[in-house]
Amino acid sequence: MALRRDDVERAAARIRGHVRRTPVAEVERGLFLKLEGTQHSGSFKVRGAFNRILGAAEDGALPASGVIAASGGNHGLAVAYAARSLGIRAEIFVPEVCAPVKIEGLRRLGADVTVTGAIYAEAYEASRKRAADTGALEIHAYDQADVAAGQGTVGAELLDQIPGGVDTVLVAVGGGGLVAGIVAAVDGRASVVAVEPERIPTLHRALEAGEPVRVEVGGVGADALGASVAGRIALDTVAGRVSSVLVTDDAIVEARRALWREHRVAAEYAGAAALAALRSGVYAARDGERVAVVVCGANTDPATLAD
Amino acid sequence: MALRRDDVERAAARIRGHVRRTPVAEVERGLFLKLEGTQHSGSFKVRGAFNRILGAAEDGALPASGVIAASGGNHGLAVAYAARSLGIRAEIFVPEVCAPVKIEGLRRLGADVTVTGAIYAEAYEASRKRAADTGALEIHAYDQADVAAGQGTVGAELLDQIPGGVDTVLVAVGGGGLVAGIVAAVDGRASVVAVEPERIPTLHRALEAGEPVRVEVGGVGADALGASVAGRIALDTVAGRVSSVLVTDDAIVEARRALWREHRVAAEYAGAAALAALRSGVYAARDGERVAVVVCGANTDPATLAD
Repeated sequence: MALRRDDVERAAARIRGHVRRTPVAEVERGLFLKLEGTQHSGSFKVRGAFNRILGAAEDGALPASGVIAASGGNHGLAVAYAARSLGIRAEIFVPEVCAPVKIEGLRRLGADVTVTGAIYAEAYEASRKRAADTGALEIHAYDQADVAAGQGTVGAELLDQIPGGVDTVLVAVGGGGLVAGIVAAVDGRASVVAVEPERIPTLHRALEAGEPVRVEVGGVGADALGASVAGRIALDTVAGRVSSVLVTDDAIVEARRALWREHRVAAEYAGAAALAALRSGVYAARDGERVAVVVCGANTDPATLAD
Repeated sequence: MALRRDDVERAAARIRGHVRRTPVAEVERGLFLKLEGTQHSGSFKVRGAFNRILGAAEDGALPASGVIAASGGNHGLAVAYAARSLGIRAEIFVPEVCAPVKIEGLRRLGADVTVTGAIYAEAYEASRKRAADTGALEIHAYDQADVAAGQGTVGAELLDQIPGGVDTVLVAVGGGGLVAGIVAAVDGRASVVAVEPERIPTLHRALEAGEPVRVEVGGVGADALGASVAGRIALDTVAGRVSSVLVTDDAIVEARRALWREHRVAAEYAGAAALAALRSGVYAARDGERVAVVVCGANTDPATLAD
């Protein structure tokens, strides 16, 4: 199922007032950074979470048992934030490897946290079983239409915020919710470049194969971009409509450092991956090309920003 | 000598392309943060430095010996940055108490650094003597018309970036260059609130006395707001045209922490002082009031952002 521009426009109307319209910085002539790390909960993920919950509420399908998700990272934080903001219950399932500081962060947001399973896939399976018992609304990290459409509001805002227009949008890809939403939102008005770490080429391999393919996950972006299989919605939406490029971990580290040193912008590794494609030359802009880079998250230990 | 709106408009035209038009984030309804920490060199100070240098160049008064300034902080970094960017020589005088890491930062920007004097005032006097010998263009940290007019471009941008208009601008004050420039720029189109730490009430005392008064300097904002005497230009420009409020160090620390936790925005203590007035209730906005807060600098050790 391919996402469409009006899915994103409906999402934008629905989540308005619940999420921040994040600022765009023109850091040099024709180079724009969308500072999505300044979003509630520190990443774009709240956009999809709000759209999923509010969409269900519109349909009268929001259960008393609230919402449920599996993630010890940005998606979990976003679901917990959105649920608290709307006054509903959130259950978050995280694997045993999840850092205690992240579990603490989820609990501070009022979520019920269940620690279970050695790896993410096991926590996810446990959350699905629990949802079947309680009837809670499942919020997937990327492969649900309302989630991807919510993430796409980043792209709709971007076009609106740059009156002179944008030729190219660079965006980091994990499971593909954000890139699918952005492709739908810009709807041919700009080129979209999907950027992945070399060590997590989830979408890249899926586009080559024409179907989701399981890949190994590793490297500095694994905590936020570490989906081992691309979403079906992402693949259906972006096939033939994006360039797919890969960046090294070194390039990601360099771009994140540059964001701090040159711009005093905080980014997690995943948040710097899109810029890494530009700075490393993996994506080379032509003279005069207007490029927007989504800095998609800032949930990082600030002590490491200048490393 | 009071600064006027057309001084700022001339400055804006002059420094365009040399400085960044920094982004504005609407973080909640009617509350806008001007993210000036994302400026070149990490603070607004480059605006004044460029305007001073380019103004002198227009008048054919830019000496071969380049520019000279006294400051181990944001002003020194800004002058060094602007000089390097324009390909001219910069000499920066810093007192012996200046941290080695700051001296290193100035040298990385290509400045000639002279370490002299136990306190800032002695380094400043030494820089004046040196300027008399070499003929270098002195760039004062705040009490020069071109410097203050350059800083004022923050205010001109702000009004332009918030189409719905702003009722009130909150701005931190050290020697008064930024607040004077902003008062001139907004020229009655918004109220301006001058915010100082209780422990450095430089402008506050001067406004009470009707003339610059020497004050003790201390507390968390001292490195960037620690002017012991307000500028003459600032006093002439803002008298009768600002509200002057004082904030505690605790309120500054709290506001800086909130900028990181709630917005993932990096700020130095001085950069958080204006927001502290709002969060602590020292400045209470009325219902529906549209408030812009200048987050004026981010030159800080990121390891301390979450403290």
